[in-house]
Amino acid sequence: MPITRSITREYIGKPIRCKAAICRKSGEPLVIEEIEVDPPKSWEVRIKILYTSLCHSDLTFWKLDPSAPPAAFPRILGHEAVGVVESVGEHVEEVKEGELVVPVFLPNCGECKDCESTKSNTCSKFGSKLFFGMPRDGTSRFRDMNGEVVHHLLCVSSFSEYTVVDVTHLVKIAQDFPLDKACLLSCGVSTGAAWKVADVEKGTTVAIFGLGAVGLAVALGAKQRGVSMIIGIDLNENKFEIGKQFGVTHFVNSTTCKEKSVSEVIKDMTNGGADYCFECIGLASLMEEAFNSSREGWGKTVIIGVEMHGSPLTLNPRTMLRGRTITGSLFGGIKPKSDLPLLAQKYLDKELNLDGFITQEVDFKDINKAFDYMVQGKSIRCIIRMDH
Amino acid sequence: MPITRSITREYIGKPIRCKAAICRKSGEPLVIEEIEVDPPKSWEVRIKILYTSLCHSDLTFWKLDPSAPPAAFPRILGHEAVGVVESVGEHVEEVKEGELVVPVFLPNCGECKDCESTKSNTCSKFGSKLFFGMPRDGTSRFRDMNGEVVHHLLCVSSFSEYTVVDVTHLVKIAQDFPLDKACLLSCGVSTGAAWKVADVEKGTTVAIFGLGAVGLAVALGAKQRGVSMIIGIDLNENKFEIGKQFGVTHFVNSTTCKEKSVSEVIKDMTNGGADYCFECIGLASLMEEAFNSSREGWGKTVIIGVEMHGSPLTLNPRTMLRGRTITGSLFGGIKPKSDLPLLAQKYLDKELNLDGFITQEVDFKDINKAFDYMVQGKSIRCIIRMDH
Ligand SMILES: [Zn+2]
Ligand SMILES: [Zn+2]
Ligand SMILES: [Zn+2]
Ligand SMILES: [Zn+2]
Repeated sequence: MPITRSITREYIGKPIRCKAAICRKSGEPLVIEEIEVDPPKSWEVRIKILYTSLCHSDLTFWKLDPSAPPAAFPRILGHEAVGVVESVGEHVEEVKEGELVVPVFLPNCGECKDCESTKSNTCSKFGSKLFFGMPRDGTSRFRDMNGEVVHHLLCVSSFSEYTVVDVTHLVKIAQDFPLDKACLLSCGVSTGAAWKVADVEKGTTVAIFGLGAVGLAVALGAKQRGVSMIIGIDLNENKFEIGKQFGVTHFVNSTTCKEKSVSEVIKDMTNGGADYCFECIGLASLMEEAFNSSREGWGKTVIIGVEMHGSPLTLNPRTMLRGRTITGSLFGGIKPKSDLPLLAQKYLDKELNLDGFITQEVDFKDINKAFDYMVQGKSIRCIIRMDH
Repeated sequence: MPITRSITREYIGKPIRCKAAICRKSGEPLVIEEIEVDPPKSWEVRIKILYTSLCHSDLTFWKLDPSAPPAAFPRILGHEAVGVVESVGEHVEEVKEGELVVPVFLPNCGECKDCESTKSNTCSKFGSKLFFGMPRDGTSRFRDMNGEVVHHLLCVSSFSEYTVVDVTHLVKIAQDFPLDKACLLSCGVSTGAAWKVADVEKGTTVAIFGLGAVGLAVALGAKQRGVSMIIGIDLNENKFEIGKQFGVTHFVNSTTCKEKSVSEVIKDMTNGGADYCFECIGLASLMEEAFNSSREGWGKTVIIGVEMHGSPLTLNPRTMLRGRTITGSLFGGIKPKSDLPLLAQKYLDKELNLDGFITQEVDFKDINKAFDYMVQGKSIRCIIRMDH
């Protein structure tokens, strides 16, 4: 069934009934149900989702302990997507009906001190509610057929035929951009632009902890910069073959590091430590290994993974003194509204191989297969077609 | 009694007998005794100390628990100094007898990957033994009158009329440079050049944790860069008046922060956090406060203080994600051999007010007074005249 972008005007200002994949219980298969999606309030946009893809963070939220603060059930997961604007709320001038948009978990109001600065990409006006991800008034636009509230995820909730997203979380995209590739720009691949944050230089060594979409995107960027060595660290051997296509030159299987720690192995491989280390998983213990793998003198560690367990990051201050740096970055340090279109253009100019990230494609009704592929370590990105 | 720079050639190649202030027991007054100082071995230089000054790190080593690894008794403390070369060992070509030199705890071999890079100042060839600070062959050049070995400190040991220093730890200085100011370049004030590491910008806010010589030097540099606000944090009220002379505009007495943490107070003062934070004490808990005081988006924390207690630095990785950076710096990130002469020139050009750091001056026989002044919080730098 072909994906159709056509929209109807008949529900403007009214709730719309559609299908959504609802996460009712932690770690249990999503259930496709009918829901009602409210019309957009001020500064909001209702979107008809065309394609969405599964990001590892969806898995993290899916499996969250129900008692942990960012957990919320029932919830509509999904935050990598592309859709067409069905209707807009008051004050929305940036997009209009029928336009293609990519939602992004990171807001970009364009007016706060951070949005105005070239040094920050973390909107200080709307950034604080990120881990809950409800609309700015704190209420949900989703209800199930029993009238129960269904929660949003990361201000996106794309595992639904229709969703409501704040305009600060939307990036317009060219009407002719390939739809199945567009959703990849929403999160993981763009987050891999963090190699820019670190300003990776030619001839240097790079260690990437976690070879998911983010880590592979970092590798791709580092390769384009002409680094001399890209070490991929993962516990899944399958990732090693895939990694080669993205420029990874050396592999460390962290599960086989017994006598030496991962950081000791990497120090041996690089004669003292990698110039740049990227943590792409979100585990405090791995962040520590990444930091310890970085070279004294100028080693830089970039934390990209989101630590969801509340574990502290424990460093030895004395090992930091000799010129090491550790920094954190959300969404690769790029600004959604201004930088995402540049990444899209890179794809069109064949400088960013988005196709390489796609390992599977399923219909919306089979969305749980996407979860299976990722849990089994078989997937970089599984594209989900909304088959309206 | 005037300080004389004259040297005699009669002890070349032989031990020299002279006076040294020996630290025999943790925290007890130094004892001025006769010692024997061996002639310099290969790559070493024997120096007649002219002026030395007391740095806070001397106090730290003085008070060390004797069972902690970098502790060693008896020991000759002191690492800020200026002296004249008495004799040189084999292979030493960089300095010759009669030349003025400033010893620096940080080596600079000039040949290793780090010394050759502009991105590092931490010599990787000789940097690892820093916290013990013995000569490169691991043996001492000092013996007391009972023939017992006396330990070195930080490769300098300047609380002695004569000392032996590796040539990689020496910086030549112009013959006409004011001697009492020269010793200040050895450690604390130069370490304050860390404002360069952070690349502090005009109009930004700076928070400085610890208003000793290092912190005040950071303030001076930040002031010259035209920052809009310099917050000094200390537990000694006396430092606040002194701080004003170095550009500190606001003060936080950390002992009076009861209902709110220091970082909360600073966030309130700066509307969200300081752009740059400097930890100049060496306490892991204060490093955490500094990090937490930094602004999300682009806040940078520079660790300058040396944590001697082995305490870990514990950070919340989620608060790092929103663009915060933490980095460490030894000796202000500057390279001794190439950058120290530039700082000296700044003094001559009246761009660096070294005089302002001098609060007392004592004769060598009264060296314990220098300790008293610092312990009582009355001293920024006490100059010790060697009165040969
Ligand atoms: Zn903003
Ligand atoms: Zn994601
Ligand atoms: Zn070196
Ligand atoms: Zn010092």
